[in-house]
Parts: sequence; C-alpha cells; structure tokens
Amino acid sequence: MLDRRRIITDMSIDQAQALHHPARDEIELAAVLHALSDPQRLQIVRELASDSEPRPCGSIELDVTKSTMTHHFRVLREAGVIRQERRGTTKLTRLRRDDLDARLPGLLDAVLTSTAVAA
Amino acid sequence: MLDRRRIITDMSIDQAQALHHPARDEIELAAVLHALSDPQRLQIVRELASDSEPRPCGSIELDVTKSTMTHHFRVLREAGVIRQERRGTTKLTRLRRDDLDARLPGLLDAVLTSTAVAA
Repeated sequence: MLDRRRIITDMSIDQAQALHHPARDEIELAAVLHALSDPQRLQIVRELASDSEPRPCGSIELDVTKSTMTHHFRVLREAGVIRQERRGTTKLTRLRRDDLDARLPGLLDAVLTSTAVAA
Repeated sequence: MLDRRRIITDMSIDQAQALHHPARDEIELAAVLHALSDPQRLQIVRELASDSEPRPCGSIELDVTKSTMTHHFRVLREAGVIRQERRGTTKLTRLRRDDLDARLPGLLDAVLTSTAVAA
C-alpha cells in the first residue's frame, strides 16, 4: 500500500511538470501574436491583466465549452503568454507580463490599450 | 471591335475594385494579430517597413511558391496591414503604417522592433 501511494504522488508531480512553459528567451513573436489573434483568447488576457492575483480557470467566464477553454489556455501557455500552476483539482493562471515586457517590449501594452476590438 | 475593347477596359476596372481593403476604422486587432502571426508574413511586413516606396510583389523574396506568396499578401491586405494596387500585370504593395498607427497605436512599432523572432 505504501508503494501504491508513492506511485500516485509521483504521478501528481509528473502531471504538474507536464505543463510546458517556454523560458523567457524561448518566447517567440509569431507564437505570441498567434496566441493573441483570437477574440476569446484576447478576452482571457484582458481579464488576467485586470488582476494581479493568479486566477482559477473557472473564474474567467466565456460562453464556450470547457474543452474550448482548455484549448485556449494551452495555446496561451505554450506561447508564453500565461503561466499555469496546478493546485489540487484546479489550475491557477496568471499573465506573464514581466516576461512579455522584457522579450517583446510594448506589445502587450499596445494590445491591451487597443480599442480596435470586434464586438 | 470598339465594344469589345470597352468590355476589356471595364473588366480591368472590376478587377482593380475586387481587391478588398478594410477602411481604417474597420481594422480589427485580432485580424491584424492573426495576419502578423506567421513568420513569413512578418518578414514581408519587415521588408515593406524598410522602404517608403510601394513595392512590386516580385521584389520581396521568400522561399515559397507564388501561390503561397499570393495567400500571404491577401491575408495581410484583408486585415488592413498592407495596401495593394494593380498596375498592369503586377501589384504594388505598401504597408498601411498610418492606418495601423492610428487604429492600433504602438502595435506595429512593437512588432518591428522585436528581436524575438525565430530563425
């Protein structure tokens, strides 16, 4: 029994490690632009930008299915736009503002201040 | 014969009009980000930004087929990033820098000054 519990604990760690995040200097312009090029993902980024605290996924409301939401978060995470950490059964999500500002100066500000957003 | 020439002239005008360009206030953030999210389209935009004169399409060299090139130009044009005008058998292309700067302040500069570009 002890061994089985040990295995389960190790699996949880593996799952946590499986959330891939590019390092700051691996963040690429084209990938970030692609991640931001969807109106729903733009809305997620705007919500995250309005709050300095990490947000549980469920706290961001979009009129899409859970699997679409998971897809959007994955695209944003793999491009380096957000950081996600598993906490029990949820994920905490925050904008990688410092990394983006260092790697792509001015881009996030230009995107967040833009009013040229389709209704 | 006169009638036939008239028809051909009208067709040329129609073809010119068929090149759709969104007006400045129709330019949308998500569409521009999508247009810029491809490394080859980014390269086209960088080339156009380096020259204030309109460029014939053939003067921008990318290692892609002509149809891919046409596709990239269309995506950029329909998002409002470039303006294309037919001149005889070629098209002259230029960046819509004023429109982009007015509609999405800071975005083009952030994109053009970024060094976070995959090799």
